[in-house]
Amino acid sequence: MTLPKQSSSSPAVTSEKKQTFRGLESYLADRQKLVDSALDQWLLPSSTVPQRLHEAMRYSVCAGGKRIRPILCLAVAEGLGASGDAVCKAAAALELMHTSSLIHDDLPALDNDDLRRGRPTSHKVFGEAMAIMAGDALIMLSFQWLADLVLMGVPAEQAIETLRILTSAVGNQGMVAGQVLDLQHDQRSIDLETLQQIHRWKTGALLRAAVEIGAVMGGAGTEERQLLARFGDKIGLLFQIVDDILDVVGTAESLGKTPGKDQREQKATYPNLLGLDEARQRAQTAKSEALQLLAELPRPIPRLRELTEYIHHRVN
Amino acid sequence: MTLPKQSSSSPAVTSEKKQTFRGLESYLADRQKLVDSALDQWLLPSSTVPQRLHEAMRYSVCAGGKRIRPILCLAVAEGLGASGDAVCKAAAALELMHTSSLIHDDLPALDNDDLRRGRPTSHKVFGEAMAIMAGDALIMLSFQWLADLVLMGVPAEQAIETLRILTSAVGNQGMVAGQVLDLQHDQRSIDLETLQQIHRWKTGALLRAAVEIGAVMGGAGTEERQLLARFGDKIGLLFQIVDDILDVVGTAESLGKTPGKDQREQKATYPNLLGLDEARQRAQTAKSEALQLLAELPRPIPRLRELTEYIHHRVN
Repeated sequence: MTLPKQSSSSPAVTSEKKQTFRGLESYLADRQKLVDSALDQWLLPSSTVPQRLHEAMRYSVCAGGKRIRPILCLAVAEGLGASGDAVCKAAAALELMHTSSLIHDDLPALDNDDLRRGRPTSHKVFGEAMAIMAGDALIMLSFQWLADLVLMGVPAEQAIETLRILTSAVGNQGMVAGQVLDLQHDQRSIDLETLQQIHRWKTGALLRAAVEIGAVMGGAGTEERQLLARFGDKIGLLFQIVDDILDVVGTAESLGKTPGKDQREQKATYPNLLGLDEARQRAQTAKSEALQLLAELPRPIPRLRELTEYIHHRVN
Repeated sequence: MTLPKQSSSSPAVTSEKKQTFRGLESYLADRQKLVDSALDQWLLPSSTVPQRLHEAMRYSVCAGGKRIRPILCLAVAEGLGASGDAVCKAAAALELMHTSSLIHDDLPALDNDDLRRGRPTSHKVFGEAMAIMAGDALIMLSFQWLADLVLMGVPAEQAIETLRILTSAVGNQGMVAGQVLDLQHDQRSIDLETLQQIHRWKTGALLRAAVEIGAVMGGAGTEERQLLARFGDKIGLLFQIVDDILDVVGTAESLGKTPGKDQREQKATYPNLLGLDEARQRAQTAKSEALQLLAELPRPIPRLRELTEYIHHRVN
């Protein structure tokens, strides 16, 4: 899943819209830098970590990427008035977890990918054993960063909530379940219901967790948190449909990757299963529902509205 | 690492000692049953977990084993006056983590073991991809059980402490670091210092965590917790030395496995590196230091004293 880049060649974007998104794009770039630098700083070498393991962990974590999950978390927390190192650490923990899943998914026994973000995958550089161990260590470190929030002054009740959210999002009823479901199905025979369940688990659950952890770090009330969690589901769905559509209609330049790959590989995607028009319609519905949930928030978070519009505008 | 079985043929055990250990052995058997049944009950199939993933997780968790880590945790908590479902769940979480490490260590890219506890290893039965995913899911579930302690009435401060202990024991400065160090060294060229570091990380850290989580669940004060943590280190060391010695002097009947395997494989062990006499001496020292720490406890925990004597008596 990639965050679509703003492209000046997109005919559907009016100059007024572009103006609007410029502020958001600058925010996204700024927060991406913040997350990159936090990860870089908190993953320093230590005499108590075997050096090669440390290198393997850093290699994948510091390989770039849009940092969508941490940014979502930050945007929510900031929208509720919270910022600072603890919020940033919680956000960065999400990136560790995401990265661990990429390392393990790329392994020969799973997706057997040689390249990730244009660089050789972890097992290609460090060997399979080290890639498995680096993934394990990143899962553990992700939880460690959340547990250690109490050392940064976060109340234990809040820290434990972030852990409850993340543990339930990634395990056998979340991210790992999604990967297993994906592995178990031949891409050519997946129906819509299965596709949706795979996405909900494999990528949706962690995106929702990012929003919900942001809500907890921002001190959201019960109603706020519930609305934001549901918003997290919708934005996860929107991301996925937009990503699938862009593979069909996008240009290599705007995508940052070769389009049409999903179609050539006969991958189960929204356009492949529903047709392009219906896929667009579903993206529109997901966007509307996401915006509706935001409208119900007792304290508005304009940044999330912008972000939702931004994700959607490329396939509009 | 195996808990040495009591053998009636051991000449060093007086009938008085045997009398003493009978109570302990009945305690161990009882707690093992408790942990087995807790794991069985809490790992029920669910419509929201892919069935095959669930089977893979249960296959390894419910494969028997002495349940040493949970029992250590229970013994400490009970010694401090705590028991019940929450204590049992924290204890059982340790077994999930231990099992995840066995599944991943057995993988072809790591130790490439076909058998574990007399049964085919996870990847032999479920395939490598599923074994990797089952290990990941068990790591996550282990933390989830600790985070969910708050749902069982455990204060958030206590639950977060158990998470801080476990996360720091298993990651890139603990269990995983030990596995990496082990992989990086040719068994025939390991020196004593490296051997000790591998054990401290690979098996010692989780045993210490088991004791320390028991202390937290039992509401230990700062001094109690520190003493018990140090006791955890000593008992981990004792376990390891005894295990190594038994490979040399034990009989198949008393070991439950073929002795002499370490020597044939030229594995780095305490007897191989130090000679049998010096290894025995180190076991004696570890036992004495463990007992000394227990003697300093403000509230004595006789069960831990018995357990320490019990582990040691076979190589006495």
